[in-house]
Amino acid sequence: MDGLLPQLEVIRKDFPILERRLADDLPLVYLDSANTSQKPQCVIDSMVDHLERHNANVARAMHQLGAESSEAFEAARDKVARFLNAPSRDEVIFTKNASEALNLVANTLAWARGPLEVGEGDRVVITEMEHHSNIVPWQLLTQRTGAELRWFGLTDDGHLDLSDIDELITERTKVVSLTWVSNMLGTINPVAEIARRAHEVGAIVVVDASQAAPQLPVDVQAVDADVVVFTGHKVTGPTGIGVLWGKKALLDELPPFLGGGEMIETVSMERSTYAGIPHKFEAGTPPIVEAVGLGTAVDYLTEIGLDDIHRHEQAITGYLLEGLATVPGLKVLGPLDASQRGGAVSFEIDGIHPHDVSQLLDSRGIAVRAGHHCAKPAHKRFGVQSSTRASSYLYTTPAEIDALVEGILATQKYFKVG
Amino acid sequence: MDGLLPQLEVIRKDFPILERRLADDLPLVYLDSANTSQKPQCVIDSMVDHLERHNANVARAMHQLGAESSEAFEAARDKVARFLNAPSRDEVIFTKNASEALNLVANTLAWARGPLEVGEGDRVVITEMEHHSNIVPWQLLTQRTGAELRWFGLTDDGHLDLSDIDELITERTKVVSLTWVSNMLGTINPVAEIARRAHEVGAIVVVDASQAAPQLPVDVQAVDADVVVFTGHKVTGPTGIGVLWGKKALLDELPPFLGGGEMIETVSMERSTYAGIPHKFEAGTPPIVEAVGLGTAVDYLTEIGLDDIHRHEQAITGYLLEGLATVPGLKVLGPLDASQRGGAVSFEIDGIHPHDVSQLLDSRGIAVRAGHHCAKPAHKRFGVQSSTRASSYLYTTPAEIDALVEGILATQKYFKVG
Repeated sequence: MDGLLPQLEVIRKDFPILERRLADDLPLVYLDSANTSQKPQCVIDSMVDHLERHNANVARAMHQLGAESSEAFEAARDKVARFLNAPSRDEVIFTKNASEALNLVANTLAWARGPLEVGEGDRVVITEMEHHSNIVPWQLLTQRTGAELRWFGLTDDGHLDLSDIDELITERTKVVSLTWVSNMLGTINPVAEIARRAHEVGAIVVVDASQAAPQLPVDVQAVDADVVVFTGHKVTGPTGIGVLWGKKALLDELPPFLGGGEMIETVSMERSTYAGIPHKFEAGTPPIVEAVGLGTAVDYLTEIGLDDIHRHEQAITGYLLEGLATVPGLKVLGPLDASQRGGAVSFEIDGIHPHDVSQLLDSRGIAVRAGHHCAKPAHKRFGVQSSTRASSYLYTTPAEIDALVEGILATQKYFKVG
Repeated sequence: MDGLLPQLEVIRKDFPILERRLADDLPLVYLDSANTSQKPQCVIDSMVDHLERHNANVARAMHQLGAESSEAFEAARDKVARFLNAPSRDEVIFTKNASEALNLVANTLAWARGPLEVGEGDRVVITEMEHHSNIVPWQLLTQRTGAELRWFGLTDDGHLDLSDIDELITERTKVVSLTWVSNMLGTINPVAEIARRAHEVGAIVVVDASQAAPQLPVDVQAVDADVVVFTGHKVTGPTGIGVLWGKKALLDELPPFLGGGEMIETVSMERSTYAGIPHKFEAGTPPIVEAVGLGTAVDYLTEIGLDDIHRHEQAITGYLLEGLATVPGLKVLGPLDASQRGGAVSFEIDGIHPHDVSQLLDSRGIAVRAGHHCAKPAHKRFGVQSSTRASSYLYTTPAEIDALVEGILATQKYFKVG
């Protein structure tokens, strides 16, 4: 198959969990990577090494362990900056996950005064294919400020409907926030084009790259958004860490988010002044060992090559779409052309509830996700409550896709459907 | 020495970093545990086992790995609930650190309407010995709502000055937030007594147990505060996770903090409804492997026994105070009676800057903290900019205290002081 990573079998050996035998001694077929990715040994080892040999608090501790820990933590910031092609390492803020990063922007905008202020008559624009984490923060912001929440709808084939872009993006539009790659439909959105249009009216552009960063080269300068966020646990790194990259000028203007240690310049009982970025937005002890793991993870992906990983995802996704097309009564939600999508494919099967599909697949060792995938509005758009989602990653093999398709056919047989 | 943990040498073997040889082949003397604690092998092993064998997202994933991961994550919540003697596991919220937990309360109170609303004429009361993380969030809240920020001052011997409690805690007092154990002065505050007084006027009581939870039995029912927070990395757990315990009635009333996946009941483009606690305050993928590590950590401490750990800390702190008393020109900031304090002792030495003290000690392998310890106002109260702080934990030996005192005397000799 064209496009597969040639070193696929070597890569698989990097992931200890892939050797796991499940109940009934079944080999694991992990097709839930859009939910969370598995972790290579190098990521785990770097975290263990940090905890066993270098653990100390950062910035505040000037002793040898403190210096080692601070160096490892800040080196991770450098690695992430390179991963994103960020103009400055100071623009890389460590958060707890992508949701916190999105909320950081929405929550601080509620307190912003001056040019960033969002108020009555202003507009925030999102899309109907957003993850809840890119919907709810903007609902809270607009409810709290009296601004208006609008959104791009979706076409029947799962793309953004940009036909009313001129009506949505106007002089009153203060923020446009959208996902780069849909976690449900798999759609890859034209984020650079939308950012350009939003910038014409002076809006802030926020891009949720949670599904993009694992599988595409993410170049924040090429996209030219104002904020790009992603999360560690989907890029083969640990939970407990996310990334907010933002343009310095914006981050300098935003009010502080969480108050506490390390985000201050000085504190008296009466008032405080705040540190410059990135520390301004990193109150308290940061996710230190998580940053170490994330740094190893993005280096791991970079070494394999994001272009090659993208080709692999496209090849696997194409093969998956072909396989699913052979299943009677199965309907894919989202684009049918693998070149226009990421490696998450949601589908429904006539007559079988997604929970039953996933349970039957699980009994064969195949892990997929069933439900609304934190994208209820997108499901509603396609007239369904929930779906089954299979999502691949750089360790996914064609044989695993075969097992999935075979499992779906067996499921239909079990339920006497299809 | 009375009070030391009898199994001290066995405990030390649990912490791999304590075998570390530093530059010049010096053994590590780690006296910076109030900054962050070291991690026992069982905590590290439980995290590795999770990452290598059980990693999956929680709640959302119904396959076998997802079930294992969710079970491990929720078991950690049970362990933390037991650790705190919480009436309900649902009252245990996982945050990213203690700072986020404190900010969660202050930030959501700014949006609260009804009985919890904080506005002009209302008052928030803190203390002069707070860590910046328990000052800045309340400054932001009061600045944003027009409420007034007041605080308990300190006595010369480092206790809270409660003489004006009737003036501070009045009918207009909406929140009283204070630390249980000072991270700088070591003072143990009468939190239950203050909580009782604050409740008489209907104020919400928030207790920062970041320094208490590592070394004292923390029984949230006995303290009867409304919110108690602590952080994972100071109780031998990993970074990237903190805990907010709060009374259900309060947590139910507070508006949502971060919006996103898992904190919702339902989402449409127009509006959302929110999940019950704990999920309401846990937007996005939570710190899963961190919860696993934290659960192991609190079980580890519980097995040794918090009463015994407290006795150990008091014995070591008493020995440390005795040792420091032999150093000419050294002044301890905070109570001089070990029975009234926790295991963090800050001091100044005539004629030598704390940074120089810590650097010289570091050259002998002794790790202490120098600076303002994120408690600038408390330093100002005692007329100093910064101090040197030595902080012990359950693995600290009398020999390490001897090494510290010897190191301080050698530092004085080096600087021709004392």
